[in-house]
Amino acid sequence: MGYSDPSSVTRVASLGAGPIGGGWTAHFLARGYDVTAYIHDASEHDALMAVIETGWGSLTELGLAPGASLDRLAVTSDLEESLDGAGFVQESGPERLEIKQALYARMGEMLSPDVVIGASTSGLTMTEIQATCATAERCVIGHPFNPPYLLPLVEIVGGKKTDPAAVAWAAAFYEIAGKAPLVMKKEVPGFVGTRLQEALWREALHMVANGEATPEDIDIAIKNGPAPRMVVQGQCMAFHVACGEGGMATNLDQFGPALKWPWTRLEAPDLTQELRDRMVDGCNVMSGGRHFEDMAAERDRKIVAVLKALNSTA
Amino acid sequence: MGYSDPSSVTRVASLGAGPIGGGWTAHFLARGYDVTAYIHDASEHDALMAVIETGWGSLTELGLAPGASLDRLAVTSDLEESLDGAGFVQESGPERLEIKQALYARMGEMLSPDVVIGASTSGLTMTEIQATCATAERCVIGHPFNPPYLLPLVEIVGGKKTDPAAVAWAAAFYEIAGKAPLVMKKEVPGFVGTRLQEALWREALHMVANGEATPEDIDIAIKNGPAPRMVVQGQCMAFHVACGEGGMATNLDQFGPALKWPWTRLEAPDLTQELRDRMVDGCNVMSGGRHFEDMAAERDRKIVAVLKALNSTA
Repeated sequence: MGYSDPSSVTRVASLGAGPIGGGWTAHFLARGYDVTAYIHDASEHDALMAVIETGWGSLTELGLAPGASLDRLAVTSDLEESLDGAGFVQESGPERLEIKQALYARMGEMLSPDVVIGASTSGLTMTEIQATCATAERCVIGHPFNPPYLLPLVEIVGGKKTDPAAVAWAAAFYEIAGKAPLVMKKEVPGFVGTRLQEALWREALHMVANGEATPEDIDIAIKNGPAPRMVVQGQCMAFHVACGEGGMATNLDQFGPALKWPWTRLEAPDLTQELRDRMVDGCNVMSGGRHFEDMAAERDRKIVAVLKALNSTA
Repeated sequence: MGYSDPSSVTRVASLGAGPIGGGWTAHFLARGYDVTAYIHDASEHDALMAVIETGWGSLTELGLAPGASLDRLAVTSDLEESLDGAGFVQESGPERLEIKQALYARMGEMLSPDVVIGASTSGLTMTEIQATCATAERCVIGHPFNPPYLLPLVEIVGGKKTDPAAVAWAAAFYEIAGKAPLVMKKEVPGFVGTRLQEALWREALHMVANGEATPEDIDIAIKNGPAPRMVVQGQCMAFHVACGEGGMATNLDQFGPALKWPWTRLEAPDLTQELRDRMVDGCNVMSGGRHFEDMAAERDRKIVAVLKALNSTA
């Protein structure tokens, strides 16, 4: 299947009236697209508009694309009408497999097979969702973080029937549309972002269950400890830069033994040579030859900016 | 032991010439204290000054306390001299038990027993460190996050011999000194912040080891997904506010089953009524009666401010 140039898309169909569907709709409007929003029932109209208007305030503050306007929104409860003329479909229907499968079966008949569909799902796989779709090749997961009008991450992965070209097209399109796309290597429950967050969350629940910390303690620790660094560097580069000249290699050699310590209830994998090489090589690619002192200075400038932004925003 | 009023401290002794010791020294100078830095050997002087000067740039940008000056720093390799007149001691010596124990044994003799000592350690417990100190009651852990001149969190916990009043004093002092203190309920390896980060980190290592993600994927996911929300809300309040009217109760009731899903390799604890109540009660305390829409709007304002700060800082 030959897909169109992702930069030629002018109209997006956004399906769903909840916080995710409405958040996506607001995002695409802010990036200057015409958007047709599909709602299952006309009674959902006001709820959808409330989400969009909430998102619009933030998106305006972040900066709208030229020509972006709420006037470029159309809302319909006719699925076929919503898909008409769409160059991309973001589907954010209810998180129930039978509903999604019925929707994809219908879209499979109604929508030209060269239009990519991205599914907002956290718990379902595309292999399941696309099972009943006659044109499954163009269906991918496009998993946002909540709220989707603010958090840039979109995790993209296909199902067994998905054309790899559709995955590549979706990544290019989301990038053009102002998101931070991450193409998954394979279908993994929880993708990347949710898995990392879920590990932290479950450790937090253990700590509360065992009287080691309260929910307040958990949030104080995150906000004032790892989070300001994570938002700037992630975690691999945080360790890489903190270890100076030696970088991730020093981190793994020096703190490798700590991976066996009971610093969380999650057991670490064996630190094989292969894993060590992947971590070191990945950090070197991200460094791009920059000196650690430059990267540490950039980290500091950005953490300062983040802390000042938080301190000055009520 | 009667400790002095923590707001009466004017001089801090900061022990250690590494990134942690130097970072603490810079922080206390920026908050307007006289600081005497102890270095083990005079040859460490330049390394210490380099860390302090790096930190000073960021601290100046964040805003110095009235009267704060690098001129209020004295550096010595005489331990007794460094402790002279100190109202608080931050110890950031090497992370080796025998070195720490020897240091605390000496300080136990030299330093008035009503002066609290805070230890910068990640992997040792105060029960171990204070074993050879004749005046162990005033010794606490004061665990910073790196870089300590930027990240506000300090996790505080005593050892078996520590006077609870010393823990309370340290929490009050760190707060006055511009940090975000977190008093631990008990000695737990990794404290709170490191445990949460370590759970995330080990899940990341598993994903890289299993070819599910690269280090680049991990960092892209963190920076663009959970981190901008975590830095604003932590994790408990992120879920509480995202679930609308029902808050954390809805989160646990609705997503409770997902705790059994393979969304991370860390198994969740059983979601008992007691754990559910602790989570819900903790979030209600943090909400302080505010409506979820107000809290969501504040979240959005702050995430926008963080994203703008990151986008505008090179």
